[in-house]
Amino acid sequence: MTHYQRIVLAKPVTGVPAAENFELQQVPVPELAEGQVLISNFIASVDPGMRSILSGGDSYSTALKSGDVIQGATVGVVTASNNERYAVGDVVGGGFGWTEMAVSDGRGLNKIKDTRVPYSCNIGILGVPGMTSFFGLERVAKLKDSETVLISSAAGTVGATAGQLAKAQGCHVTGIAGSDEKCQWLKDSCGFDQVINYKAVADLDAAIAAACPDGIDVLFDNVGNTMIDRVIPLMKMGGRIVVSGQVADYNVDPAERPGIKNTSAFITHRLRMEGMVVFDDFREFGRAKEALIQRIVDGSMIYREHVSEGIENMPAAFIGLFTGESFGRRLVQLAPTPA
Amino acid sequence: MTHYQRIVLAKPVTGVPAAENFELQQVPVPELAEGQVLISNFIASVDPGMRSILSGGDSYSTALKSGDVIQGATVGVVTASNNERYAVGDVVGGGFGWTEMAVSDGRGLNKIKDTRVPYSCNIGILGVPGMTSFFGLERVAKLKDSETVLISSAAGTVGATAGQLAKAQGCHVTGIAGSDEKCQWLKDSCGFDQVINYKAVADLDAAIAAACPDGIDVLFDNVGNTMIDRVIPLMKMGGRIVVSGQVADYNVDPAERPGIKNTSAFITHRLRMEGMVVFDDFREFGRAKEALIQRIVDGSMIYREHVSEGIENMPAAFIGLFTGESFGRRLVQLAPTPA
Repeated sequence: MTHYQRIVLAKPVTGVPAAENFELQQVPVPELAEGQVLISNFIASVDPGMRSILSGGDSYSTALKSGDVIQGATVGVVTASNNERYAVGDVVGGGFGWTEMAVSDGRGLNKIKDTRVPYSCNIGILGVPGMTSFFGLERVAKLKDSETVLISSAAGTVGATAGQLAKAQGCHVTGIAGSDEKCQWLKDSCGFDQVINYKAVADLDAAIAAACPDGIDVLFDNVGNTMIDRVIPLMKMGGRIVVSGQVADYNVDPAERPGIKNTSAFITHRLRMEGMVVFDDFREFGRAKEALIQRIVDGSMIYREHVSEGIENMPAAFIGLFTGESFGRRLVQLAPTPA
Repeated sequence: MTHYQRIVLAKPVTGVPAAENFELQQVPVPELAEGQVLISNFIASVDPGMRSILSGGDSYSTALKSGDVIQGATVGVVTASNNERYAVGDVVGGGFGWTEMAVSDGRGLNKIKDTRVPYSCNIGILGVPGMTSFFGLERVAKLKDSETVLISSAAGTVGATAGQLAKAQGCHVTGIAGSDEKCQWLKDSCGFDQVINYKAVADLDAAIAAACPDGIDVLFDNVGNTMIDRVIPLMKMGGRIVVSGQVADYNVDPAERPGIKNTSAFITHRLRMEGMVVFDDFREFGRAKEALIQRIVDGSMIYREHVSEGIENMPAAFIGLFTGESFGRRLVQLAPTPA
């Protein structure tokens, strides 16, 4: 193979991302320098949080410029190595983005030796989404047993994993999702106590209040300002709002976003709202991954993947994150998974 | 004395409080039952936070009904006692509200024996405002030495005390207030590093950014949503917003309030916003009071009082809290302070 494909930012995104924002490029496979390895990625993720670095401005990573490869998590196999720590055939996780191949000096590479779960888990339930669920509940929400938890965008990997973890702590868990199929899965397969299809209810506020009649201790929010504002009046004393994602707001200019108005309850009900980026918890990932693997292996934790084929379909998969069409961790298979 | 005066809620407040919301009543001094004491209050406070219980609805106390005495902190002297724990002449702090006299069975009474500072301090810098400053910084903000702190409504007792406490921790402290006189006092007498008269600057955002060029670790907010929203983009990584008061929002219907829109920084900058009611820290008040008394006595902590005379002036004093005319802890002298 002399060339490989990658996708770069063609022009910064304004509003809703569209195909024209992305460019598929053919680039030559580089020569390896001393200490470098060549990786052939076989699966990659598209993540809603990436939206915030596609329009310029400040984010938790530096904003991308036109021509930069779109970021994302990857799993690949080492196909050539000038680095004694990596052998051809090693499976490695990384954050190489929307690219079929990548060169690394080993930094940011993470050799995947654990085969108790499929490789794809490493960029899903054991990757950023699952780590966000785990540390969002543990570190940010400081979830206590038997509390009442509301999760928005609940059928995504972050939401579904958080809900199952909360159930394992004996919590009462309600999930909000955008289709009957997703709600059914959350209830039947993930064990959520209550589910709300926000597209099917006439009055979402009333539906949430009915599902959580005694109030809400923790809102694990993946949606944004409108969701947070409507839930605040239902929060219990000492309630916590985990700002995990803002899928409804990423595509909206900040000046045009709905605002959070119900802030008087921050005082009356001693609410705490806290944002998170899970990389802050990096040193604890091992413990969290092991806890999740054990649950996956013993069958008490499930996950769902929504896999497309071929790098050329990554923009469409990404755009679909904002339309609600995704159902499960959104991944793109770039090459066959090694046996 | 056969009668005393008190002020009750005449009708719930809509929008800005006005004289018509309050009624001055003459009521007979009651007979004391066994175990009761009669207290003649000589000084009382008016508090902006009380606004939230004057229009009905949920708050950190139960909303008042028409005919209820307006709540507030008081210091009085025991003038009759059927309770062996209290003697005539004892000075007692309480929360009896806008009333010249009160009857108590001892619950909620707090005998004031410490005369190192004036009695009025017990409902000011040693009362709810000063305790809010202390625990807002310590428990909620978890303030660290040398951080950058921005305080809104800084010339109030909460703000000025918080600023001096933060200065004692080596922090860089900027205060926002509404007159040159207040700003001068904050800088010259309270030791604030930077002051901003929000009524005199053309661009408040730019003024804040200029005062805190490296960003803000802690916003101690007493104003409300508009202030919080404008400061969020200036917060440093890991910044904390203490929701201490909302004087700009209390008089505005929640649906009409400005919203907090800049929430993307909650994720990118890992911000935490947390509301507080200082009664939660009640068990720690002794430690905080002693720390403040020592600073007052050694001259390293100052406070300012704005005292009116006569219970009939309490509504005007309260209304003045929302116009910016107050300068210092707003108190009303109901009777001469005992020697």
